Amino acid sequence: MGSETTTAEQDDVARARELLRDLRASIDNFDAAIVYLLAERFRATEQVGRLKAAHKLPAADPTREREQIARLRTLAKDAKFNPDFAEKFLNFIVKEVIRHHEAVASGSTDAGLVQSAQS
Amino acid sequence: MGSETTTAEQDDVARARELLRDLRASIDNFDAAIVYLLAERFRATEQVGRLKAAHKLPAADPTREREQIARLRTLAKDAKFNPDFAEKFLNFIVKEVIRHHEAVASGSTDAGLVQSAQS
Repeated sequence: MGSETTTAEQDDVARARELLRDLRASIDNFDAAIVYLLAERFRATEQVGRLKAAHKLPAADPTREREQIARLRTLAKDAKFNPDFAEKFLNFIVKEVIRHHEAVASGSTDAGLVQSAQS
Repeated sequence: MGSETTTAEQDDVARARELLRDLRASIDNFDAAIVYLLAERFRATEQVGRLKAAHKLPAADPTREREQIARLRTLAKDAKFNPDFAEKFLNFIVKEVIRHHEAVASGSTDAGLVQSAQS
């Protein structure tokens, strides 16, 4: 009986490992897609940063950020995704972008989140 | 001359505002796409969490994380995107997922990053 249970357990573990491998392959694909989208997003914020620096506009824009958060929370609910996490995610991204806009405005050249066409 | 300069400046500001509006529309689209992909990514990690909990596997897996970081840094370089930021991003996500896996393993029911079919 002991050995039968062990075989069943081994089968169970083997199935779990296979499922884990499949899930991780999907996660890797999602991460690749997200990284490419983030790269494209930052190409846009890079241009926003240059515009803001050229027109001496402040790096942060609290009204815009509030609108973005409200919108992403709604989208997250549509996607059956935790809206608090979507907000945390946007805050993380926006903090990085502002840090970067400030570096651009202060003339730092090695602050790039994306590699510009010139470099 | 003074008024001519002012009109040129006004045109310049109007063009900048229009460009800013366009860039923000693109950023909003990228964010929507990213949120939907994150939702799908977390549906997969949710299943990983349940598997790990069922088989008493640890929530964190340092080898897997090292591989993910190395892979995302390479992808980021391909996308002409800052690899340090890609790594920061993954660390942020993984930290949330581990926090969540631990909550699942400890039997917390309100820890969901995604809404399950039952709820």
